[in-house]
Amino acid sequence: MKVNGKPYRTIWLNEGNDRVVQVIDQLKLPHAFEIADVLSVADMCRAISNMTVRGAGLIGASAGFGMYLASREAPEQGFHDFMRQAAADLKATRPTAANLAWAVERMLGAIAVGTTPAHMRQLARDAAVAIADEDAEHCWRLGEHGLALIAAIAQRKPGQCVNILTHCNAGWLAFVDFGSATAPIYAAHDAGIPVHVWVDETRPRNQGASLTAWELGQHGVPHTLIADNAGGHLMQHGLVDMVITGTDRVTRNGDVANKIGTYLKALAARDNGIPMVVALPSSTFDFTLGDGIASIPIEERGAEEVRFVSGKTSHSGIETVQICPDTTPARNWGFDVTPARLVTKLICERGICDANEAAILALFPQERE
Amino acid sequence: MKVNGKPYRTIWLNEGNDRVVQVIDQLKLPHAFEIADVLSVADMCRAISNMTVRGAGLIGASAGFGMYLASREAPEQGFHDFMRQAAADLKATRPTAANLAWAVERMLGAIAVGTTPAHMRQLARDAAVAIADEDAEHCWRLGEHGLALIAAIAQRKPGQCVNILTHCNAGWLAFVDFGSATAPIYAAHDAGIPVHVWVDETRPRNQGASLTAWELGQHGVPHTLIADNAGGHLMQHGLVDMVITGTDRVTRNGDVANKIGTYLKALAARDNGIPMVVALPSSTFDFTLGDGIASIPIEERGAEEVRFVSGKTSHSGIETVQICPDTTPARNWGFDVTPARLVTKLICERGICDANEAAILALFPQERE
Repeated sequence: MKVNGKPYRTIWLNEGNDRVVQVIDQLKLPHAFEIADVLSVADMCRAISNMTVRGAGLIGASAGFGMYLASREAPEQGFHDFMRQAAADLKATRPTAANLAWAVERMLGAIAVGTTPAHMRQLARDAAVAIADEDAEHCWRLGEHGLALIAAIAQRKPGQCVNILTHCNAGWLAFVDFGSATAPIYAAHDAGIPVHVWVDETRPRNQGASLTAWELGQHGVPHTLIADNAGGHLMQHGLVDMVITGTDRVTRNGDVANKIGTYLKALAARDNGIPMVVALPSSTFDFTLGDGIASIPIEERGAEEVRFVSGKTSHSGIETVQICPDTTPARNWGFDVTPARLVTKLICERGICDANEAAILALFPQERE
Repeated sequence: MKVNGKPYRTIWLNEGNDRVVQVIDQLKLPHAFEIADVLSVADMCRAISNMTVRGAGLIGASAGFGMYLASREAPEQGFHDFMRQAAADLKATRPTAANLAWAVERMLGAIAVGTTPAHMRQLARDAAVAIADEDAEHCWRLGEHGLALIAAIAQRKPGQCVNILTHCNAGWLAFVDFGSATAPIYAAHDAGIPVHVWVDETRPRNQGASLTAWELGQHGVPHTLIADNAGGHLMQHGLVDMVITGTDRVTRNGDVANKIGTYLKALAARDNGIPMVVALPSSTFDFTLGDGIASIPIEERGAEEVRFVSGKTSHSGIETVQICPDTTPARNWGFDVTPARLVTKLICERGICDANEAAILALFPQERE
């Protein structure tokens, strides 16, 4: 997608020096657009943990490039030990996102057929680039599928805007390009369908306010920032036509882990007869898991993310402010699980399906076992 | 309730000079505890609008004292015109809270029987004090009723903590004393029942983080601050035994207007079989309205409350930071309506009832008409 008119992905190999991975520094957005260099697997682990890079697809692509960087660092003697440690370190950075382990395993598989360290480095480079390219392509394709859902709503209210509510950032910033939840929105906007997006702020890290609002603004998609609390009220008053979110992991039976609070929006959508749509590249499916509430690991992050808020001061500095008493304890779970019964449709690059095992496996017959 | 060991109400007449109303300045909490003087009805309108004072019961009590201050300002000639204007100005400050219009009408009724301006000033003073005293007494009594609900849960899990989730601040800071949602919690805590409160941050104005966390901390009630997004996840995992909130207006049939986001928690409570309890003094009922979603006016406040967050910096200054891009538009509805079908019980000073017209009118037979 374009930033100030210039096309970007969220992660790429430096053109002149392929020992350097470059990423958009998402900790600086929306107040500054900066590119960060990632020089080692340890750097990449930090970037994933501290959310310099974040979002289901981008975490996977980052893990791919992290494994590639590891292959450049690994000694000739002990190459495989070094890579196994790198894999473990990367997997430990964020527990919920399915794409992370998926990408690490794919990288291990790719280098396993290498004959020499040099060969394996080349294989790692190719695999990391392929993961990123596929992520972008899958998001593009799921956007085309999702466009049909938005077009169908637009047809039912000619001349009126299609109002879409989204939670967190499942935009192109969360992937390599296009995004998952945003891909159908961008496709609809580019096709001339009038769309307007209600952007959930998404406490505690405000990815909606800082990232989704920013990228929709860059692309010129009309949008309005709201508190996470507001979505139910909007739905009760006919101001939402569709909820669309991304996801960090979808189980075999269609349970959806996504940013904390998604479950509440899914409940409100159901209560008001509004479609609750979840968009994902196939790399986000975890076919090994059934009941998502019981089995998907939910990351708990630091209390300081709840107790403090960062933003731009009136002097254009960045400041962090404390919003509660000094002694107030806080807890901070990063995700919740929306049961499949509340999900109207899943959109992936292979098409659209209902959120149940039979429908999912009809799109992914190789997972039937 | 006590602050640093000294008992306070949220509003009172200055002991030495009864032309001065004093209030706890809630814009300064939790980082400073300051008392503000309110000297005129115009002052009081500002204090209600800018939320120096806020919360269903306290808005009512403030309107009462505002009318009293107006009676001190009103000229001998044109006394009633002045009072009618004061009534209109006060009613216009916040559209959703039922207590506001209720208190203003009660004040007008009280002074209507006066024979001279001096007599009417005395009647206004007495009525304002009575409204405040009754608010405190009603909260105390509903706390005793609500205590029984908490005690019943405690009996089913002996030796374990009763986990209660609340949204916004319906604490003693929102009333004259004791609070509505918090009154049963304080009563249970004081009775030795182990309770723990999940405190919703309550964006955009963070009344949970800044007020509820503060007052629970002052009283020593164990509590944990969470993002508004977290409650559904907690309920899915058995970590909430009861949701209890206050309300700004309850219709004849039991629909509940409360801080935006309450509806989402009520949906999650229903989905997880958890009681959703709403506590209110009878002054918060609006027996003239039926369907709350269609009829309760919902205040829309400024976008800046969504776009900016205030808090304490590391240097102990207070700073306001912008959390979205410079050009991002925002909308900010203050309340939503939880349909009666999602409300398990209403608690008021007369007792506990189901949220339907027959049950409510059984407690308030004079409203049967």
